[in-house]
Amino acid sequence: MKLVTYRKHVEAEARLGALVDGLVVDIEMLGAAGGAVLPVRMLDFIAAGPAALRAAQRLLEAGIDSWPVPGVLPAENVTLLAPIPRPAKNIFGIGLNYVEHVEESARTLDTSRDLPKQPVIFSKPPTAVIGPGEPVRHNGALTRQLDWEVELAAIVGTRAQRVSKDAAMSHVFGYSVMIDISARDNRRSGQWIVSKGQDTFAPFGPCIVTADEIGDPQELDLWLTVNGVEKQRSNTRHMLFRIDTLVSDISSCMTLEPGDIIATGTPEGVGAGRDPQEWLWPGDEIECGVQGIGTLRHSVIRA
Amino acid sequence: MKLVTYRKHVEAEARLGALVDGLVVDIEMLGAAGGAVLPVRMLDFIAAGPAALRAAQRLLEAGIDSWPVPGVLPAENVTLLAPIPRPAKNIFGIGLNYVEHVEESARTLDTSRDLPKQPVIFSKPPTAVIGPGEPVRHNGALTRQLDWEVELAAIVGTRAQRVSKDAAMSHVFGYSVMIDISARDNRRSGQWIVSKGQDTFAPFGPCIVTADEIGDPQELDLWLTVNGVEKQRSNTRHMLFRIDTLVSDISSCMTLEPGDIIATGTPEGVGAGRDPQEWLWPGDEIECGVQGIGTLRHSVIRA
Repeated sequence: MKLVTYRKHVEAEARLGALVDGLVVDIEMLGAAGGAVLPVRMLDFIAAGPAALRAAQRLLEAGIDSWPVPGVLPAENVTLLAPIPRPAKNIFGIGLNYVEHVEESARTLDTSRDLPKQPVIFSKPPTAVIGPGEPVRHNGALTRQLDWEVELAAIVGTRAQRVSKDAAMSHVFGYSVMIDISARDNRRSGQWIVSKGQDTFAPFGPCIVTADEIGDPQELDLWLTVNGVEKQRSNTRHMLFRIDTLVSDISSCMTLEPGDIIATGTPEGVGAGRDPQEWLWPGDEIECGVQGIGTLRHSVIRA
Repeated sequence: MKLVTYRKHVEAEARLGALVDGLVVDIEMLGAAGGAVLPVRMLDFIAAGPAALRAAQRLLEAGIDSWPVPGVLPAENVTLLAPIPRPAKNIFGIGLNYVEHVEESARTLDTSRDLPKQPVIFSKPPTAVIGPGEPVRHNGALTRQLDWEVELAAIVGTRAQRVSKDAAMSHVFGYSVMIDISARDNRRSGQWIVSKGQDTFAPFGPCIVTADEIGDPQELDLWLTVNGVEKQRSNTRHMLFRIDTLVSDISSCMTLEPGDIIATGTPEGVGAGRDPQEWLWPGDEIECGVQGIGTLRHSVIRA
């Protein structure tokens, strides 16, 4: 299932929907029409576990004739928010998780040329999240090196404490797209949170695709363009540490909770790694996507 | 006012209380007895702003004879939780914020000897929080360099986006104590979150003292002992970046929200800086405090 958080109009509440053939079907209303109690919010749906997912799937599969008329809207007529709206839950980012990106980073940033022996974990605060189409803010007083990083995001479904690699994937609820916007000149004593954690630096969406629909998450193309020119194109098979390792590794020391986001790292082609280097500026348009999930489009504006 | 989050017994809900002369006075019940609607939870009370604080103060000042009998309990008879229980809101930590600690860190860790020109910001995930007396878990499979850091914690009261240094202190709700437990050998490619973000690595409490009662937060003694031996003793006047600068600086790029915690850095005397180096092991007892706030006591146990 493709799950979205949507708003019917500017004064309406943010609600959980399923995206089906260009329509947004309201999950709570779908449940009410079919005799099931289903949540209004994405986090509650994730926390509700497989019974909620199965019930929603069953009601959706019954077809449009059984869907609640007021709860079905063309996707063009609603606003999609971040699937888990700001402030989201924890966002764990993984640095240097594609081999070619380790190489380009070592060439132009202060990172090591050696492949990391363990996942390089950092965090973005939940306030950094923006939804599809919301502008990325470029603060010229803070940065002149704003960069792009398209990433597959794994969404945690069930609490994970010290789970094995074998058990790890059962804790993943689904997948989405996140851009790990990074102000390269805002690292402080090597720490990345200011560089990567500023407001609007975590574009997220457009939906969460549940794990059962994604097939193999390690065989997905991902790509990014700036002003229509392709900058990144790779496949999640080139990850250095795969998703099962990331979940197991993070959970070995920090409890993962339902709704937590793991941004799994970016492939080569970031602006810092190009010769000459390229940066994002107000007026630029970023577009990116991950196979089977969807596309994000964001303008960069002056903060 | 000294505010706590307490639990009456193991099956009771976590509730907001005021600590007065060894008694915990339940804030919601105090309000109900006095004709005011006051929140049950700390975060709601912080978000409610000055009207809630003034109402609670007024009702407390009316004295014990007007307090609700079922809502007043000896502090010894309740369990204090972290003032903002796990999972808390954002925890921003500040590295290298006392001059002598910069010196000891440069001697024994991988940090620079130069004083930082901007605050060194990192984060701890909200899952790391534990309340007064909860054990710190030592995971021998992950670390052999577990260290202590006593810190003054500033609690954000109102949303802060790009606030000036002059306006910054009006966004601080109050102060508490946090121990920034750090596994020195768990840094990864220089990033600190695994080192500082593990479960139980953020002991927090015992209360939040509202800003109006703390006097000058830059004139507070702070200290820490391990097994009764003093390891740290300093005063917040030795901070390199003061609290107004920290709030202004973080808010210049990341929105601060009510309930966010800023752990303002630790003075000299950490285990890593001693000769020979000293580390925490299962069985050790940590005790620490900040003047005018209170004391935290934590055992280290095997994870």
